Amino acid sequence: MTMTQPTRHEPIYQRLASHYRDVIHAGSLAPGDRMPSLRTLMRQHAVSLSTVLQFSRQLESEGWLEARPRSGYFVRHPRRSALARVAEPRLDVAPDPAQYVGIHARVSEFVARRRLQPSKIDFSAARCAPELYPGEALKNAAIRALRRQPDLLVSPSQARGSRHLRSVLAKRAINIGLALSSEDIQITNGCIEALNIALRAVAQPGDTIAVESPTFYGLLQILESLNMRALEIPTSPETGMSTGALELALQTYPDIKAVVVVPHLQNPLGSMMPAAHKQQLLRLCQHHDIALIEDDSYSELANRSDAQAASIRAIKSWDTGGQVIYCASLHKTLAPGLRLGWMAAGRWQARVEMLKYAQTRSNEELPQLAAAEFMASSQYDRHLRTLRGKLDVQRAKTAEAIATYFPAGTRMNLPDGGLTLWVELPGQLSSGAVFDAALDAQILVAPGWLFSNSRRFDHFVRLNCGWPYDAVLDRGLRGLGEIVGRLAHRLE
Amino acid sequence: MTMTQPTRHEPIYQRLASHYRDVIHAGSLAPGDRMPSLRTLMRQHAVSLSTVLQFSRQLESEGWLEARPRSGYFVRHPRRSALARVAEPRLDVAPDPAQYVGIHARVSEFVARRRLQPSKIDFSAARCAPELYPGEALKNAAIRALRRQPDLLVSPSQARGSRHLRSVLAKRAINIGLALSSEDIQITNGCIEALNIALRAVAQPGDTIAVESPTFYGLLQILESLNMRALEIPTSPETGMSTGALELALQTYPDIKAVVVVPHLQNPLGSMMPAAHKQQLLRLCQHHDIALIEDDSYSELANRSDAQAASIRAIKSWDTGGQVIYCASLHKTLAPGLRLGWMAAGRWQARVEMLKYAQTRSNEELPQLAAAEFMASSQYDRHLRTLRGKLDVQRAKTAEAIATYFPAGTRMNLPDGGLTLWVELPGQLSSGAVFDAALDAQILVAPGWLFSNSRRFDHFVRLNCGWPYDAVLDRGLRGLGEIVGRLAHRLE
Repeated sequence: MTMTQPTRHEPIYQRLASHYRDVIHAGSLAPGDRMPSLRTLMRQHAVSLSTVLQFSRQLESEGWLEARPRSGYFVRHPRRSALARVAEPRLDVAPDPAQYVGIHARVSEFVARRRLQPSKIDFSAARCAPELYPGEALKNAAIRALRRQPDLLVSPSQARGSRHLRSVLAKRAINIGLALSSEDIQITNGCIEALNIALRAVAQPGDTIAVESPTFYGLLQILESLNMRALEIPTSPETGMSTGALELALQTYPDIKAVVVVPHLQNPLGSMMPAAHKQQLLRLCQHHDIALIEDDSYSELANRSDAQAASIRAIKSWDTGGQVIYCASLHKTLAPGLRLGWMAAGRWQARVEMLKYAQTRSNEELPQLAAAEFMASSQYDRHLRTLRGKLDVQRAKTAEAIATYFPAGTRMNLPDGGLTLWVELPGQLSSGAVFDAALDAQILVAPGWLFSNSRRFDHFVRLNCGWPYDAVLDRGLRGLGEIVGRLAHRLE
Repeated sequence: MTMTQPTRHEPIYQRLASHYRDVIHAGSLAPGDRMPSLRTLMRQHAVSLSTVLQFSRQLESEGWLEARPRSGYFVRHPRRSALARVAEPRLDVAPDPAQYVGIHARVSEFVARRRLQPSKIDFSAARCAPELYPGEALKNAAIRALRRQPDLLVSPSQARGSRHLRSVLAKRAINIGLALSSEDIQITNGCIEALNIALRAVAQPGDTIAVESPTFYGLLQILESLNMRALEIPTSPETGMSTGALELALQTYPDIKAVVVVPHLQNPLGSMMPAAHKQQLLRLCQHHDIALIEDDSYSELANRSDAQAASIRAIKSWDTGGQVIYCASLHKTLAPGLRLGWMAAGRWQARVEMLKYAQTRSNEELPQLAAAEFMASSQYDRHLRTLRGKLDVQRAKTAEAIATYFPAGTRMNLPDGGLTLWVELPGQLSSGAVFDAALDAQILVAPGWLFSNSRRFDHFVRLNCGWPYDAVLDRGLRGLGEIVGRLAHRLE
């Protein structure tokens, strides 16, 4: 049994407590499992009975273990289960056409405030720590590519992207049910450029695009910058965009030209769309002959532990008529320092290639070669397994801290993957007030008003879990919980 | 006196002829200069009298030297002076609003034809051979950057671009009269993205943008893809866009939102805008309160040999009110494998930063660090001097070949810098016919119809001079000359 090295000043019982928290988070000990006996623990860690009792009682007091008379300690269902799930959206609220724009101004305000008041702890991004990525292997792959092709940086690159990378992506896409050739793929500057181009390929300024509500502000920003109108469709935190609500919207607004969805680990909800739901959505888009833009940047971060997730299939895998524009990114899964995305645009492929050429020409070759070398090896799947495992622990610890530190009435779902949590504040408390107070305490959060053109999600915050959980983050969440508690108390 | 090493099979007199062609091209021996005496040449190159006579007579027959009785050989004005200059544009032709669009279809046709019929010799690009760029130094700089910051590829990059690169660019911009701080600069994916963003910052779909006529098809493509309308303003092959014609257009079309110009080595004309002309253009834009978008991708390729060029100043250097959006690229001057451009957008800077973020997020850090390291050293200026010298020779040899091989009536300017030549075919011969026939002979040219939405430049071709001149290129130009001759003959 490996255990982290002791740090100075940390009593041994605390190290053991921390170790067993990790073991439970990682699932090696699941709720209901019996803990090793006190005698076994003493022998295994070479500690005294009083130390074993001390850390066991601490874990019991934290809600990780429960003592059953004459049976010893058992792993409990973690306390986060005490938090109610986020409510399903109301479907009877008609989308409000007055609320199509405004995200630029909000993002600007957010950025300006962030610049004015620097923060020590940043929960606002959807970003993992650099050490969670294969920096060393990618660095070496890049150096090898430069040595192999010494004139790489002074030679023009291929318009669609490196053939090698496109082949690797096409091969990996088999895992999500896609039969693509390298010719079907266009490399882009991240998924953000792919979404820009997809929208420009299928819609004109003034057109309406159906999006999930809430959704990531990057998408709302793209739409506003392209003078397109975002029609926000109620979206379940469990199963994604409501097809019923979408169908109603398609009947009401004839100028909807496309639907954009994040079917796997939707940002910010974390929802996973069931297979039947995906097929229903595709049929709707086919029936109304509008483009379905599938942003699949996160599926590699979804756990493969249950049956549904084990067979993650892209919506495009059911698409026979080229109705779906599939977009994805390596930014969150492989390397945040690479701006690599890609798209397979079905019937719009030629137009997509032309728009990409007119917008930014080809991507540089070097990062593509480095990524392709790593992804073609078994290292990539190994890295993804490790990354998912680490995110699990970080997400669980963050969720646990929220359950511990935030006041009653806080609600939250715990998605089975991904790097953020979507937290509903108690009593409709404004995330703007929380954002302000948190910034005063040098803590940055992403307020709910960044995720919709409406004010519907003002009482939510999105919190990042991308960093290895440590005392600083724990202090940040405790501080945040106190702020929420104080502000919620004033509301009463 | 250095001389290239002899290659096997090449007679010594031919090597000497080639050497003196280079010397004359490079300007070390100027028209009117006396050649060294036969005796001096014999001693200097350790060759026989018959060899000296042989290469001198060859150069005489090629038109490089003339023999004057009892005085010896003198360098002649090169034969290209026999070619008339391209005509100035007619200013009394009103721009035709029916011709605003169509470049996508033409470029698609061009690309499709190029794919169907592969060519052996490509004169169509505006691109230099990789060996003209500092590949080795950039490669080493990239490797050093990776070693210095091992987690470079897995760490997020800065939104505006690497601070180091922006500082280097700001410092170099002093040379063209710009006083910028690194905060005034936004790094982009090449000048193409800078132009996209500049246009999106100042204009909406449906708006009209005044451009040079002819202009590079990349710009026309951007405008068409943004649903903006290109109003083509007559442009002098010598002094650039006609301010008179622009003024008239501004009075006629009230929906012009911006003017885009390439003041230095305009593509495809090669024109250089005089300082007074630049100021006049700026005053016009200020008076009408429209944006002036200055694309300065080529000024580093302009010779510094005459007084005008010695003091190349950006139009933005006279701009006090933030009216000018300056855009530039490192693509042609530093490395065709890097997609690095930049912009300084004056009063639109905040909007430009937002659009860049919404379109492609930040640029990757690695290429920026490699470029910055090289550009901060004295190597960059040394490289630029060498590059300009090589382009001079390549341009002169290409011009000479055109003068030699193309039929009478061909017209051409020889710009004092840059990497392309703009050639007017005799008797209004269609470049489409030349393009077709040349492609059958596996020679690719850029037909004039790529450089305008009108058919006004159908009897031009743009020819690349970016590759070191050799027998293959010479054969290609001879073949092209024969095709033009044959087709022109049929017209008569």
